[in-house]
Amino acid sequence: MKRKITLKQIAKELDVSVSTVSKALSDSKEISEDTKQKIQAFAKLYNYRPNNIALSLKNRKTKTIGILIPEIVHHFFSTVIRGIERVANRRGYNVIVGLSNESFTKEIINMEMLAGGSIDGFILSISKETMLKQDYHHFNATIDQGIPIVMFDRVVDEVDCDKVIVDDFKGAVKATEKLIVNKCKNIALITTMDYISVGRLRTQGYLEALKSNNIEANPNLILKIDDTLDVENHIEVLENEIEQFFKTNPKIDGLFAVNELYAVTAMKVARKLGLSIPEDMQVIGFTDGVLSKHATPSLTTVSQHGQKIGEQSANLLIDRLEAMDYDKPSYLANNEPKKDFIKLVIETEIIERESTK
Amino acid sequence: MKRKITLKQIAKELDVSVSTVSKALSDSKEISEDTKQKIQAFAKLYNYRPNNIALSLKNRKTKTIGILIPEIVHHFFSTVIRGIERVANRRGYNVIVGLSNESFTKEIINMEMLAGGSIDGFILSISKETMLKQDYHHFNATIDQGIPIVMFDRVVDEVDCDKVIVDDFKGAVKATEKLIVNKCKNIALITTMDYISVGRLRTQGYLEALKSNNIEANPNLILKIDDTLDVENHIEVLENEIEQFFKTNPKIDGLFAVNELYAVTAMKVARKLGLSIPEDMQVIGFTDGVLSKHATPSLTTVSQHGQKIGEQSANLLIDRLEAMDYDKPSYLANNEPKKDFIKLVIETEIIERESTK
Repeated sequence: MKRKITLKQIAKELDVSVSTVSKALSDSKEISEDTKQKIQAFAKLYNYRPNNIALSLKNRKTKTIGILIPEIVHHFFSTVIRGIERVANRRGYNVIVGLSNESFTKEIINMEMLAGGSIDGFILSISKETMLKQDYHHFNATIDQGIPIVMFDRVVDEVDCDKVIVDDFKGAVKATEKLIVNKCKNIALITTMDYISVGRLRTQGYLEALKSNNIEANPNLILKIDDTLDVENHIEVLENEIEQFFKTNPKIDGLFAVNELYAVTAMKVARKLGLSIPEDMQVIGFTDGVLSKHATPSLTTVSQHGQKIGEQSANLLIDRLEAMDYDKPSYLANNEPKKDFIKLVIETEIIERESTK
Repeated sequence: MKRKITLKQIAKELDVSVSTVSKALSDSKEISEDTKQKIQAFAKLYNYRPNNIALSLKNRKTKTIGILIPEIVHHFFSTVIRGIERVANRRGYNVIVGLSNESFTKEIINMEMLAGGSIDGFILSISKETMLKQDYHHFNATIDQGIPIVMFDRVVDEVDCDKVIVDDFKGAVKATEKLIVNKCKNIALITTMDYISVGRLRTQGYLEALKSNNIEANPNLILKIDDTLDVENHIEVLENEIEQFFKTNPKIDGLFAVNELYAVTAMKVARKLGLSIPEDMQVIGFTDGVLSKHATPSLTTVSQHGQKIGEQSANLLIDRLEAMDYDKPSYLANNEPKKDFIKLVIETEIIERESTK
């Protein structure tokens, strides 16, 4: 059984990036004809399976779902996987997990490896670097191969596929409005940089809630954390940033943080500065993980229902897999009308605990 | 590309368990000759690749490591994966993760799937059900196929392979002795049922520390939690058990818990009963995860160094893969002396925080 050459090996041999190889093989217009010809010829010589091959898919079913997530040390993703697994097990599917580590190249390599015969379809959340680059050719190439994708949480309009998202915007509106109703006058936001869609949507929800309640947003009350920072191992950096933020803005009496680690860390810093929660400052986080439950005081949060996201994603994917006509070459399947795709929005809810009045 | 039949399909067709099929194909003595012949004939008919095929491995390298862990919503396993990934990335390997969900059958199915051409070797921690059954034929069959395994944390003597473990026993001795030195007179233990090796070793360490300090162990001070319980979703059950335990044993002034969730939950229950920590009761946990860091008071723990375990496991596996002679048929490799295998013990250390004096 001769192993076929991989994208990575082609890239290395020809001294180009994995992404260039991947694009050349899916005949992208971004790559020059010269380069494309060179790469395609090389791939052919070494027996690389081209993307557009019209495989008879009938015997290709592996009954395995490939999950591709940005990182593993993350309670939200873990609960999504748990949800996927529950449904997959019930419906007779196995799951396998690839990690992109927030890297564009690793995302491509993992997709290629799993798509090469191990799995029937993907459930994935896009890496940060891919979002930054706005380069989604590998998803579309995979779909063109006849391998369906369901995206969850971090999704983009540029790829036509089933999607499952939480209502980040509305969740943030709810959280901010709760603080307004609870009579907070200076409501701060701790968020991530803008390029991650979920951070952006939560920030927009915060701004919208202020606006619709006739409160002028104060840019000084928004702290943006560089989330390429490995916070778990650099918790002190995060603490210092938040401490400076609180010291510069002593009037903050309400805080919405876009994840639970920021929220729990903020409560710790507030305590250090002699503030009582919820008396002096009320805090709401996003993501209902173990930290929220076990923090002191326990944290009021916007629950994302990770497990439900996973369950719905698995159902969407398996429904699609079971509806696929494996006798039909994939290029025909691609001509199906696009309106067929579903975007499921999972409603968030506020789980009230001790960090709000 | 016709997909070969899987163990699961054979099992279903012949109405036997996956384990029976797996054993029959690795020619186990536990299976009757009749059954073996039937299964082997069926597998041959449907082109199942037998375990003992002497593949020329030269072109089989995938540069991918298969990680097989019992569950994903578990900070310890996540940090191990992170450690594996760091080393794998540095040394040019990719990783892929399979989940056994603590199930023996899922462990077999995942191994079969990954071993079928996707990966070069395994890093794994054994499922609870496999430990209970004490049935390790699938690990040995995989090794016999020429696919090396490194086991971590939950390991068994019955499989000859490289192993990386934390010194659970000594870690528990250290924790208990710290409570003794801190003048605790009635030191309790919250542990799991005995069949998981780590729970058993930590319990032994607790008992050993008491004994070597001439303190008689009191069985009433040991609470064994049924860890088939999905504690994260049934935290109240755990809380009630601990509350009963504390009420029945009001003299407890020191507590060692074999994981951080038990420890943090115990602190919460103690607070509810009006006890101050560390004044009335000192608490030490095992596993240094996010809960320990962010608990109030923050938890003194025995650190397992999950990331280091992952890094060492990856180095052991990749070293072995790179030393393998892929030209040699695997049956020859099996005749190598067994003493070659390494058992690495990662030292634990106590991380002192606020829950002890």
